[in-house]
Amino acid sequence: MLRTLRTLRTRIRPGLMSSNTVESLVKDIKLSIKRSSIPVPVGISNRHLHLSREDFKTLFGRDAEPTLLRQLVQPVFFACHEKVLLEGSKGIIENVRLIGPYRPQTQIEISVSDAVVLGLNPPVRDSGALKGSPGVMVKGPAGTVRLSSGVILAKRHIHFNPDEARLFEITDGMEVRVRCGLGGDRELVFEKVLCRVSNKFKLEFHLDIEETNAAMVKNGDVAYIVGI
Amino acid sequence: MLRTLRTLRTRIRPGLMSSNTVESLVKDIKLSIKRSSIPVPVGISNRHLHLSREDFKTLFGRDAEPTLLRQLVQPVFFACHEKVLLEGSKGIIENVRLIGPYRPQTQIEISVSDAVVLGLNPPVRDSGALKGSPGVMVKGPAGTVRLSSGVILAKRHIHFNPDEARLFEITDGMEVRVRCGLGGDRELVFEKVLCRVSNKFKLEFHLDIEETNAAMVKNGDVAYIVGI
Repeated sequence: MLRTLRTLRTRIRPGLMSSNTVESLVKDIKLSIKRSSIPVPVGISNRHLHLSREDFKTLFGRDAEPTLLRQLVQPVFFACHEKVLLEGSKGIIENVRLIGPYRPQTQIEISVSDAVVLGLNPPVRDSGALKGSPGVMVKGPAGTVRLSSGVILAKRHIHFNPDEARLFEITDGMEVRVRCGLGGDRELVFEKVLCRVSNKFKLEFHLDIEETNAAMVKNGDVAYIVGI
Repeated sequence: MLRTLRTLRTRIRPGLMSSNTVESLVKDIKLSIKRSSIPVPVGISNRHLHLSREDFKTLFGRDAEPTLLRQLVQPVFFACHEKVLLEGSKGIIENVRLIGPYRPQTQIEISVSDAVVLGLNPPVRDSGALKGSPGVMVKGPAGTVRLSSGVILAKRHIHFNPDEARLFEITDGMEVRVRCGLGGDRELVFEKVLCRVSNKFKLEFHLDIEETNAAMVKNGDVAYIVGI
């Protein structure tokens, strides 16, 4: 509401409201209504890791390759049978699942509660933005990798393919507000949700387990992009 | 935003905008701005339980009494040294702390993740509203209590003393929207936050750990009541 008031204040000054201003405001409102009328499925990300080819070989052996457990909603990603153990200064977390395919750099996505267990203080980051993030010890059946960086809290984000992005009038890198758990006991509005557009993606709003529990939503429930 | 538009639509019709309508709208906006200018400290509730005198005696012995670990921000509540174990159909949770004083009915407040561990499906409820909630087995050093109900997910709420409530123009039982983590990486707006007013209370916004982690806020950070 305050944000809306600020928008109005900067656009409408008494006696100076031009027809251009009104047109622009009406356009914004129409876009807002259009976006909020299209449901976006929620996808929950449990803690997981992506491995570089080299780190995978160290952890699982030279002759090993990631083995498919199941395809994920995002066509390019798949859950693997392979799991690792994370060891931090304060504790360990077992059975952290590998998500394929290989990545140029190993990346581990955990929750705030997981970070407390491990004794880490990872930043909230978009996938791939690992500079300055903390490392952790990763143990597999064939060996150990001591990462110097790569642990992040995933920034909440929506995946769009280019057609879906056009429908929502969204471009890659935009941030939007998303209403989640509409009508439920824990409805909330997530601010600063990153939009990621690629022909490898499919419409899905990714949150971690603490975020979905805070909103009381499950996999496949729907959320709505709201606000101007 | 859509809510605001709906409000405007119901109050302002072209050619029918009376001065009363404008006055009422201006009053709402002024109230909204006033409320959102006063910070509300955040208090994190980890899983805990309140015990009836009878259940306490069963769990800790006839001659035992709750012993003070520390006073909580709410003057009437205190954390105790005493801890219990919860056992559900799927698993157990150890070291669940007692919050005193005694209550007429035993009440256990857990997170959604805790509920999954225990194999329970508790409802989101205001404190004391336990009808239809699931039970769980509670084990203490002197005995076991098999609860038939009493396990809930606490409905997020703000405590006010009557002076604070007057300042915010809040009455007991109202629901408000609360912006949390302002300017941070995980800013969000919680809907349907219950307002509880009592001279036993002090201004504090209570959330569980998953809710505070979703917003990336810590004990003592501030939140703001927003919206009309």
